[in-house]
Amino acid sequence: MPTKRTPPWDGLLIDCRLATLTANGEPYGAIQQGAIGWKDGLIAYAGPLADLPDRPAALAARVESAGNAWITPGLVDCHTHLVFGGNRAPEFERRLQGESYEAIARAGGGIVSTVRATRALDEDALYAASLPRLRALIADGVTTIEIKSGYGLDVESETKMLRVARRLGTEHGIDVRTTFLGAHALPPEYAGRGDDYIDLVCNDMLPAVAAEGLADTVDAFCEGIGFSPAQTRRVFERARALGLPVKLHADQLSDLGGAALVAEYGGLSADHIEYTSEDGVRAMARAGTVAVLLPGAFHCLRETKLPPIDALRAHGVPMAVATDLNPGTSPLGSLRLAMALACTHFRLTPEEALRGATMHAARALGLADRGTLAAGQRADFVLWSIDHPAELAYWLGGQLVRGVWAGGRRLVPA
Amino acid sequence: MPTKRTPPWDGLLIDCRLATLTANGEPYGAIQQGAIGWKDGLIAYAGPLADLPDRPAALAARVESAGNAWITPGLVDCHTHLVFGGNRAPEFERRLQGESYEAIARAGGGIVSTVRATRALDEDALYAASLPRLRALIADGVTTIEIKSGYGLDVESETKMLRVARRLGTEHGIDVRTTFLGAHALPPEYAGRGDDYIDLVCNDMLPAVAAEGLADTVDAFCEGIGFSPAQTRRVFERARALGLPVKLHADQLSDLGGAALVAEYGGLSADHIEYTSEDGVRAMARAGTVAVLLPGAFHCLRETKLPPIDALRAHGVPMAVATDLNPGTSPLGSLRLAMALACTHFRLTPEEALRGATMHAARALGLADRGTLAAGQRADFVLWSIDHPAELAYWLGGQLVRGVWAGGRRLVPA
Ligand SMILES: [Zn+2]
Ligand SMILES: [Zn+2]
Repeated sequence: MPTKRTPPWDGLLIDCRLATLTANGEPYGAIQQGAIGWKDGLIAYAGPLADLPDRPAALAARVESAGNAWITPGLVDCHTHLVFGGNRAPEFERRLQGESYEAIARAGGGIVSTVRATRALDEDALYAASLPRLRALIADGVTTIEIKSGYGLDVESETKMLRVARRLGTEHGIDVRTTFLGAHALPPEYAGRGDDYIDLVCNDMLPAVAAEGLADTVDAFCEGIGFSPAQTRRVFERARALGLPVKLHADQLSDLGGAALVAEYGGLSADHIEYTSEDGVRAMARAGTVAVLLPGAFHCLRETKLPPIDALRAHGVPMAVATDLNPGTSPLGSLRLAMALACTHFRLTPEEALRGATMHAARALGLADRGTLAAGQRADFVLWSIDHPAELAYWLGGQLVRGVWAGGRRLVPA
Repeated sequence: MPTKRTPPWDGLLIDCRLATLTANGEPYGAIQQGAIGWKDGLIAYAGPLADLPDRPAALAARVESAGNAWITPGLVDCHTHLVFGGNRAPEFERRLQGESYEAIARAGGGIVSTVRATRALDEDALYAASLPRLRALIADGVTTIEIKSGYGLDVESETKMLRVARRLGTEHGIDVRTTFLGAHALPPEYAGRGDDYIDLVCNDMLPAVAAEGLADTVDAFCEGIGFSPAQTRRVFERARALGLPVKLHADQLSDLGGAALVAEYGGLSADHIEYTSEDGVRAMARAGTVAVLLPGAFHCLRETKLPPIDALRAHGVPMAVATDLNPGTSPLGSLRLAMALACTHFRLTPEEALRGATMHAARALGLADRGTLAAGQRADFVLWSIDHPAELAYWLGGQLVRGVWAGGRRLVPA
């Protein structure tokens, strides 16, 4: 009588189609009759059902059939401003009623209103305000989320935002990557004193953030209405001194050479980049800097200048896609919808959009352990009610998620 | 000792804010400290909490506090093609990979592929294919849905589609309004014989549909790539003879005078109408024909010609907003997202968008018993996690619904 053996894996899904996104010669790295097994939070097997090393029941205590449904890597939203107080729906309404941006700004609207609302909330209230947005992203397939500060704009409020971001991740079993974006906008108390504010960012905020280990990366908004390349450079120098990698809101509304600037610092990503020149693209290619495309902001601002997609393709720059979820220019709570907007507005293919919301987004966060379905990667994956992976970028809205696993733990349905 | 009295109402929500959409002098017809009670599927009370005719507990056996959340009328999606087989995501992908419409059509793509897929499914399979789309719309706040035929294009398949549409409503407790759209496209077997096909529509399909009571209205696609005004007129004459009201896919890609044509027949609505002239708008105003705006198709087709919004406003034509949910030009599974697209693309205000997705949409279906919160109306309403009704058109994606009631029955959460 054989002794009862403990199956080696924690879980196993069989009878599924896998969009592994690995280079197996198929579109989407597809495997038509697949299986995926996981153990201790990592993928133990992702491949053909027929090649499993043993009978399913011998491999995992828990074996489920996916009924031939598709599985993709968990989506990675690599650019969000998810933590904020209030929202700007009333301002959205006033603009559509014909009020000018200037009149709204004079009346205390714009980013300043979000700064005021964010400063006013204590940590618990800010957490509670942000939680439904996190939950909505997860419910639509996201398993890794980047969250930026940038609505606090003083030491206390910036660190508060980052603590809330960290807590959102630890309390929901998904990985939140934090970005310090003190150089997002000039707070009212520094009006006309941009360089003084950058002093505060470099000498007070950044050291405080680094001391508490609150940020994984450092970002800035380099733009005519934001900070100059020289000011951005000061922030990057300080980040470098503290050992923190950088990224940049670059060339969204004009070409200030932001993409080349962040590439010069070996930046993880240049984000937006509608106005980036081919030279900027070349610099990104040399530095390995990912292009993060943000079609939500492009859409909401009704922009017409497209990012240099063909140049990015030609120079082999990986293109990520993210929500840019924020209350002013992209109140977009679905990464799948960002993928759809990237196809319609930027003419990405559905496969580019999916790779952009998984493997390339992971790379934009400096993460090599996720974004594809392969043994050894984090067990972050999504089971979808679709017949073809292109549907993920085709449907606008709707409910496609059947299950979400992060680190091998099932998050959806809860 | 008083005898125990049975409370008169079935349910009562207190501590809510109501966007009644009635003409009470407030934006959105708002009531800030409101209550809503219902009985036998109808609203018994919608007004200030302070004006309730008795103590809440005496009015309903079931009293709930809404915690100051907003309640709107249930959303009405007045233009969908929700019942179909297959989908066109692979075609969407091929177009983005650079294939031309012509090449795709030659390879059997386009609407013909949906006709093929829809004909191939039996009634149960077509029902099962359509159900997730219905569920997604309801989950995002829809309580009345119009569904068109038009992918069958023969007597048997058109009636099959309409039976499936009826069944979707009866089995899910929401009101489905059906529209016969036999004159949607020319089936392959009638290639080059448009007038013969219109004979079939008028002499076989319409009588069969009317005999079974399968359609509430009759529609056609009047366009260069659809049917001519003369052919449309033949369909409308036959509908009139059968006592069925009409509506029309009008002036989407060119101005064929479709809006004026449907107005001439006292039509319920003219839909799309990007190219409608001011004369057409005047004709609609005179006839009481509703303008149904379909920003999903405008978005997906990357159109640039805007419908005549200012003229519609000037002439007092009610503007409805709908998803146009269909597999070719608008795979849009959220009416709230259609509202957001109407604001961004067409510059509707959030209040116009909400009225367009409720009261004006109800009117586009000839329904006077819903679309506002007032005593005597159907008890169709939605409880939302928002602080301001403008948020319904502001957020893209996300999860805002807290509860959906249709005919006084709670559908969400199930
Ligand atoms: Zn951003
Ligand atoms: Zn339509």
